[in-house]
Amino acid sequence: MKIPRPERIARIMWRLAKNPFRLFSLSDIAKSFEVSKTVISDDIEIISNAMKDEGRCNIVIDRGRGGGAYLVPTFDEADKRRFLEGVAEELSKEERFLPGGLIYYSDIVFDPHYTQWLGWALGSMFIDCGAEVVMTSEVKGIPIAIFVAQSLGLPLAVCRFRNRPSDGPAVALHYPSGTGEVRAMYMGTRNLKKGAKVLIIDDFMRGGSTIAGMTMMAREFEATVVGKGVFIVSALPEQKAISGYKALLVLEKDEHGPRVRVL
Amino acid sequence: MKIPRPERIARIMWRLAKNPFRLFSLSDIAKSFEVSKTVISDDIEIISNAMKDEGRCNIVIDRGRGGGAYLVPTFDEADKRRFLEGVAEELSKEERFLPGGLIYYSDIVFDPHYTQWLGWALGSMFIDCGAEVVMTSEVKGIPIAIFVAQSLGLPLAVCRFRNRPSDGPAVALHYPSGTGEVRAMYMGTRNLKKGAKVLIIDDFMRGGSTIAGMTMMAREFEATVVGKGVFIVSALPEQKAISGYKALLVLEKDEHGPRVRVL
Repeated sequence: MKIPRPERIARIMWRLAKNPFRLFSLSDIAKSFEVSKTVISDDIEIISNAMKDEGRCNIVIDRGRGGGAYLVPTFDEADKRRFLEGVAEELSKEERFLPGGLIYYSDIVFDPHYTQWLGWALGSMFIDCGAEVVMTSEVKGIPIAIFVAQSLGLPLAVCRFRNRPSDGPAVALHYPSGTGEVRAMYMGTRNLKKGAKVLIIDDFMRGGSTIAGMTMMAREFEATVVGKGVFIVSALPEQKAISGYKALLVLEKDEHGPRVRVL
Repeated sequence: MKIPRPERIARIMWRLAKNPFRLFSLSDIAKSFEVSKTVISDDIEIISNAMKDEGRCNIVIDRGRGGGAYLVPTFDEADKRRFLEGVAEELSKEERFLPGGLIYYSDIVFDPHYTQWLGWALGSMFIDCGAEVVMTSEVKGIPIAIFVAQSLGLPLAVCRFRNRPSDGPAVALHYPSGTGEVRAMYMGTRNLKKGAKVLIIDDFMRGGSTIAGMTMMAREFEATVVGKGVFIVSALPEQKAISGYKALLVLEKDEHGPRVRVL
């Protein structure tokens, strides 16, 4: 029995939405619904137009070979600013001030309601970087990084500060922290492929030593760092251990205390 | 200008797919597309039927008050078994054997291609448990737990084994590990609300001491544990520190070494 177009569109949309960056072949979809490729091509065109109005994603139509389509994260600048301003306002509340000029944001990065879109926003800044894997460090980097990875259809490799038996063999590396002490970092040899193109994502950056450490780790795996994205960057110190990063928010300090604003 | 039905359906499907368990009011949707509530009601009916054929989710239609709809994770038993059997087969490969009868699975839990559906499968077992928050412990529990949280539209609270300045004030708790030593666990007082209904999710359970610890932590917050879900449970020891849990996979041992199968 032939399924009517609206129902077919709902089902194709669902598949695209759950699998960003995965190429769906038009022939395969056509086969699964027992219709012609032209019919599916029209369906995809309709979905693509719908998403242009809806925002936050684009449908890329690949007209080569068998033809196919996939969804990529995009975030219209005005929409992104509106969303991030809401997050910045929440983060700037006085009850979030912590000793040392820090702010409390664990609840935000652990709440998918926020963090899936934070990951989406960061991911949308790196759709063309050619990354094959996203790298982050435990613990609070993980939720945002995994949503970045999802938005780009990539796996995640996690630098750990302790090595555990269940993580398997790992490369251990020492790197200087911002305070001058030397810290250890571990990356499972099975978690990161040699020579991979790596997108580094972290939740918070002060001096950039952790990301510098991850860059060193990438080098140990002969990997190339093709992008660096951060949720919140601290305005101080001005001098960072790394360059060429993109961030969503900045943590500044004024006479009232810490304050977060959209970059 | 009135948007044609197929395009409207794509846009509604996108919103539902990205926000499980969030109730979308029919009146609000109708207003945003400048059509009548009856038209939107028919759209939702079409989407609901489409998802019945597509699988992995259901659309719940709330006919009370203003009327609304939301998406819940479901996983047809046959589909779930097929998916989990693929994961179990991958996990049973000999090169994954680790000392101590363990298997390497970090790459699986850190790859959204797998872990979003593992979280979805676990979440679908708890749609009626009434949880208000998902709880897990660092580090490898986080990716699955955050996708469970996403599938249920809930925030995530993370028990940590170290307390850091940026986590804010925390409750520290000591609990006996499986080997008899006493370990410390921390839960940020701002990350978990007093008296909440908690769904505990973890990646791996051997004797159950970590989940028992998380249960003790919940008690410190006067919270009620309404469910316990685990990705992989070890067949040994048979005696666990907790009961009433649900698991997706079991790790057994035969003459060839460790082996993972679907529960």
